[in-house]
Amino acid sequence: MKIIVDGFGGDNAPGEILLGCAQAMEELGVGILLAGDKDRLEAAGKELGIGDKLAKMEILPAGQVLSMEDEPTSVIKDKADSSMAVGLRALAEGKGDAFASAGNSGALVVGATTLVKRIHGVKRVTFAPILPKAGGFFMLTDGGANVDCRPEMLVQFGLMGSVYMEKVMGIRNPRVGLCNVGNEAHKGDDLRKQAHALFQECKGINFTGNVEGRELPYDGCDVAVTDGFTGNMMLKLYEGVALALMDQIKGVLTSGLKNKLAAAMVYSDMKKLKKHMDYNEYGGAPIMGAKKPVLKIHGSAKAATVKNALRLTRDYTRSGIIADIAEAVGKKQE
Amino acid sequence: MKIIVDGFGGDNAPGEILLGCAQAMEELGVGILLAGDKDRLEAAGKELGIGDKLAKMEILPAGQVLSMEDEPTSVIKDKADSSMAVGLRALAEGKGDAFASAGNSGALVVGATTLVKRIHGVKRVTFAPILPKAGGFFMLTDGGANVDCRPEMLVQFGLMGSVYMEKVMGIRNPRVGLCNVGNEAHKGDDLRKQAHALFQECKGINFTGNVEGRELPYDGCDVAVTDGFTGNMMLKLYEGVALALMDQIKGVLTSGLKNKLAAAMVYSDMKKLKKHMDYNEYGGAPIMGAKKPVLKIHGSAKAATVKNALRLTRDYTRSGIIADIAEAVGKKQE
Repeated sequence: MKIIVDGFGGDNAPGEILLGCAQAMEELGVGILLAGDKDRLEAAGKELGIGDKLAKMEILPAGQVLSMEDEPTSVIKDKADSSMAVGLRALAEGKGDAFASAGNSGALVVGATTLVKRIHGVKRVTFAPILPKAGGFFMLTDGGANVDCRPEMLVQFGLMGSVYMEKVMGIRNPRVGLCNVGNEAHKGDDLRKQAHALFQECKGINFTGNVEGRELPYDGCDVAVTDGFTGNMMLKLYEGVALALMDQIKGVLTSGLKNKLAAAMVYSDMKKLKKHMDYNEYGGAPIMGAKKPVLKIHGSAKAATVKNALRLTRDYTRSGIIADIAEAVGKKQE
Repeated sequence: MKIIVDGFGGDNAPGEILLGCAQAMEELGVGILLAGDKDRLEAAGKELGIGDKLAKMEILPAGQVLSMEDEPTSVIKDKADSSMAVGLRALAEGKGDAFASAGNSGALVVGATTLVKRIHGVKRVTFAPILPKAGGFFMLTDGGANVDCRPEMLVQFGLMGSVYMEKVMGIRNPRVGLCNVGNEAHKGDDLRKQAHALFQECKGINFTGNVEGRELPYDGCDVAVTDGFTGNMMLKLYEGVALALMDQIKGVLTSGLKNKLAAAMVYSDMKKLKKHMDYNEYGGAPIMGAKKPVLKIHGSAKAATVKNALRLTRDYTRSGIIADIAEAVGKKQE
């Protein structure tokens, strides 16, 4: 399998991206096709002392860099020669099996939609991160690709998420919940009421009804469906609350000798907990609904996180999920 | 000051409500007017052994109980004789200075709007809880009273929240942020774009622009403004993530002798942290925009939380915030 990687996406590019790719190549048995300026990539590889590893990767020349400040549509306009755009076109042309980028999420969504294209019948691609919950993980879809949604889009997000959780994460008969302000079917705004009715008619998924925010960290469902505006607020709030709380606990455990001693005693268990709460564990999230695998790596990812995201990319690609989504969406429309 | 309290609202009514009222009466120097069935209240008081304290409260007879399952509009329809409806009407008639209930939030919002009425010029009342952030607290408005919002409603929520944080919480020149998927002015859906433009024109408040979910637990702003759908998802997710994480940490600190020993060493500091993270610390949230003070007590509140909510009710009533909101909203419309 060959993964095309955006060499100049994210806060720590190209250094940490290169390091992560080198680790992935060695540990995950994947080939890497790096999109970006050849000279700059080689200079970075040399500086990091991984010139030999870089030599085993292919390079896909791309002169421009698409930054976090660029408009999402720039990927098909004035940044059409960026590492992101070049990589996405290479995926569409079959030069690799998947594309991963830590760059501008909005541009990646636009690029996945316009350059790689959507699976036939899919109305919108969705950015679908995985978040920790008690005893496991759940998918949040949409996490920010679509700030305006129609009810049938929410149903497709649930459908795709269900296939993902079953195929990639190994959850049997995943529970699909509609994020709402109450559990009763009549709750919420028109979007939620209509989506709820459509979900109830939808065969082939295990729709378990409305799910409230409080339930999500407590195994409320396996696939939490919402519009991209709410989803993005929830995603970032989730990360923020978990990080802030872990920071404060760290503050407690490092203040004074007695607390430090206590911290040493619970160190390994707290580390396990921190690992479970750490959204970097998966390193990224798929842009589901695209015809070929496109994955977003966390923007602030360092090498280990990049590697984890490339493992997810590999598993996603291997799973055959795209054919399954095409089938599920097709069936739904017959 | 006399606070009218819904004796039959919430999961633990009437027992914990009565106990909380008794504490509030003794510790906070407030008078209590309890709405509810006289016989049942007296029986509960006797059973709890606080008959003498109950004797110092006034009782406002109300035959019905409005439950969590009742429709919000039932407060003015088939549950017009419920303790909530009777209490709200008593407030409107001037029989007390404020009303507090741990009952059905939706009904309380409808009741505040229709029975107590809105301040002249206020488009919608808002449910505005206080949440912990690094080094303090912020207000989330709207937390669920209005699932559908127009841009000018969001601006009023910000205006009222600003007055609240300054008057009741003592924050000088509170920073008002618009919850959004990115910091740039052009981000978000139409509601956010229009609200952002209106906020920038709005004088008399310190609008600091868009705020992302990740920033909120890290002192992103003092007043976080959003629509009631997103706000309710965020509020409950915030509570859920904090509780789930504290549960998991508790799990770590109680597994095995070594960890228990460590837990004992950090006990008092962890308790302080837990107290800061605990949304029961404030016990409730105002329904802002109503002509008279109406406050929601947490639905699952026990006695100590009820007392805290009644302290908030007292401080809110004393602050004179309602006159200030009327003035701020009036000025805005000149």
